[in-house]
Amino acid sequence: MSTHSAVDIITTKRDGAALSDDAIEWMLDSYGGGAVADEQMSALLMAIYFQGLTPRELARWTDVMIASGERLDLSRLSRPTVDKHSTGGVGDKISLILAPLVAACGAAVPQLSGRGLGHTGGTLDKLESIPGWRAHLSNDEAIDQLESIGAVICAAGTGLAPIDRKLYALRDVTGTVESIPLISSSIMSKKIAEGTQALVLDVKVGRGAFIKTLSRARELASTMVGLGRSHGVATVAQLTAMNQPLGRAVGNAIEVVESVDVLRGDGPADVRELTLALARTMLELVGIDVDPVTKLDDGSAYELYCRMIEAQGGDPTAPLALGSHRHVVTAAHDGIVQSVDALGVGVAAWRLGAGRARKEDPVSAGAGVMCLVREGDFVVAHQPLFELYADDDEHLERGRASIENAVRLGDQSTDVESILIERISS
Amino acid sequence: MSTHSAVDIITTKRDGAALSDDAIEWMLDSYGGGAVADEQMSALLMAIYFQGLTPRELARWTDVMIASGERLDLSRLSRPTVDKHSTGGVGDKISLILAPLVAACGAAVPQLSGRGLGHTGGTLDKLESIPGWRAHLSNDEAIDQLESIGAVICAAGTGLAPIDRKLYALRDVTGTVESIPLISSSIMSKKIAEGTQALVLDVKVGRGAFIKTLSRARELASTMVGLGRSHGVATVAQLTAMNQPLGRAVGNAIEVVESVDVLRGDGPADVRELTLALARTMLELVGIDVDPVTKLDDGSAYELYCRMIEAQGGDPTAPLALGSHRHVVTAAHDGIVQSVDALGVGVAAWRLGAGRARKEDPVSAGAGVMCLVREGDFVVAHQPLFELYADDDEHLERGRASIENAVRLGDQSTDVESILIERISS
Repeated sequence: MSTHSAVDIITTKRDGAALSDDAIEWMLDSYGGGAVADEQMSALLMAIYFQGLTPRELARWTDVMIASGERLDLSRLSRPTVDKHSTGGVGDKISLILAPLVAACGAAVPQLSGRGLGHTGGTLDKLESIPGWRAHLSNDEAIDQLESIGAVICAAGTGLAPIDRKLYALRDVTGTVESIPLISSSIMSKKIAEGTQALVLDVKVGRGAFIKTLSRARELASTMVGLGRSHGVATVAQLTAMNQPLGRAVGNAIEVVESVDVLRGDGPADVRELTLALARTMLELVGIDVDPVTKLDDGSAYELYCRMIEAQGGDPTAPLALGSHRHVVTAAHDGIVQSVDALGVGVAAWRLGAGRARKEDPVSAGAGVMCLVREGDFVVAHQPLFELYADDDEHLERGRASIENAVRLGDQSTDVESILIERISS
Repeated sequence: MSTHSAVDIITTKRDGAALSDDAIEWMLDSYGGGAVADEQMSALLMAIYFQGLTPRELARWTDVMIASGERLDLSRLSRPTVDKHSTGGVGDKISLILAPLVAACGAAVPQLSGRGLGHTGGTLDKLESIPGWRAHLSNDEAIDQLESIGAVICAAGTGLAPIDRKLYALRDVTGTVESIPLISSSIMSKKIAEGTQALVLDVKVGRGAFIKTLSRARELASTMVGLGRSHGVATVAQLTAMNQPLGRAVGNAIEVVESVDVLRGDGPADVRELTLALARTMLELVGIDVDPVTKLDDGSAYELYCRMIEAQGGDPTAPLALGSHRHVVTAAHDGIVQSVDALGVGVAAWRLGAGRARKEDPVSAGAGVMCLVREGDFVVAHQPLFELYADDDEHLERGRASIENAVRLGDQSTDVESILIERISS
């Protein structure tokens, strides 16, 4: 690898030209090693925000990220492996249901997850509201659990694409998170390094998602699908609506409770519909011809969930307490629900204590929001719209202030939108 | 001043919206104080590169830069003050002639200058080839010399717009130098803080300048003129051609010698023409009705130059030696000079030892290039085109490699372009 100049690489991208394979490798490796400074990498990231990366640049960028760490070998497992990644939505507890459900159908689901940051919660934070459950497993423990049970949800080890950790922390403080190639390489480098054979991407689009428009969601989806396929991972993306919260529960313990409802064959229709659609796609990708609905109905998905939680030290039957400080938001007048603002609800749950502002912050297990109405519902004056839960009055008050205008009432009847928008396979 | 978030400010600009006065003040002051990190400022600078600054944002940005340091008070001087700034060209020794010439006409010229970096040399580096001459004066020394002699060329004190020093160092390593609002605020904050009443900007455009196109030169010129006027400095810009080197001499001592030639009424026609044009504009701005040509012809400009050099410890009559290692580049065949590449000549002089790659590097007084032909000249085979001077063979060889193709010969007769392109007053 020859020597490059960071300034030349930044100005090349800034001026709209493509970077050579060698320049990308030099820049990322030098950044990882400290020879390229944070202020140089952030300038390059902002230039990439404006100028993008070509498919070839993006493939190389992602390769170098993968090569910066270890790559798990799941090939010795007796079952086919398939994972799911969501770009993040309010009330998105799908992983908790999907991993045991798909495992109950015969696949192995290696859900190596990150922490939540901002208004969309993290799967690990939700599961940590279960007494005794631990997120951190060694690679061998995770692989053993995949073989013996078929599903593992645990913290992604620091060995997978470690440069992503450094780049993500930098993007987070420099306004360079929202770039399609940077998002794509960040997500896909970790999933490819994780070693899964197949992957379904749940790309959220709407007011409560970080991608607001269908065209951007399509671009992100097809970029990630292309990256996965070019690295030998069978990848499909499902675009899904994220205007109102997914299901009724938004928080940590409150979402675990709702997930268990779905695993026992009950729960909100939209959560069940989305889980089954993603499960069918995952099974299709690994050639397993089982209808997942049968595994919800016969109790085997719930049983597998219990084994998965127990294997990581948790008690799946322990009662989960919600925050002791509570408030009910009611309707000011009669009307039809025109919209439930997922972003508003997500921010409220975050302020109630369910989310964190900084990586180091703890989260509250019991804080959260129960959404009692959905778009299209008729409500009468004083009817409850939301129940809020927090650990103290200060958090309760902060959450309350964010949610007051989250439901818009009107007199138009509204068509209920389908949560499934479209599937992108190339 | 309220509290802002650096990320919000970066994303606001990234997304094309204008920053509030308060946000700009907070960002720059926090950067100066260390609360905003280099990687955040460089991301903002790259966003500004792409999205620009509105006139209001730019005025505020510049105000905050000025307010970060001291502002000289030249109002107690008995003469009107007028300065000149050049955006940098190859062989641009105009300041050395212009300051004493305009002072000889009755104005006070406070030339507080910076160091050269890259292929265009710095005025201070050139003057430092004079034995004994010192660039560093206190503010009081500079003001006293302005009163007693009328001209001072010295190093700009660190007290003027100190945040520019930090910002410039950051821009230099992050590919964010070439932004019109950032260039404009960097130049104008220092000139406004310097306290001059009037200012003429020499905006170079062409192959040897960092601005290559007329439209960008016009944009830069009118941005700086607007900033000067809104801060009470009578400002005019002169766009000038920088395709071939200015004059014949490119280097340090070699340019001082050529400047003295012009001050004594001799020297290359283009240097004399540009100096007189700029001098007339400067005098016009401060209402002095003297034809500067008379001050070249009667020796008073040269006399003032000698006093200016002596006041700073220099011996204006000391012989200046050129580098002892020499090489002559000759024409390969007969022809008409189609072009002399100013950039190539500038880079050659720099590699011969006349310029520096890093701020800390020393420069050679004797290194440089003498250009023996200009565009439109007829030459015959083996006729000398350039004389190169260096302190050792290694530098000589490096300079030689850069200059070999700097003269293009052909059979077309060429129109000699005027060095004065246009004047921009608003």
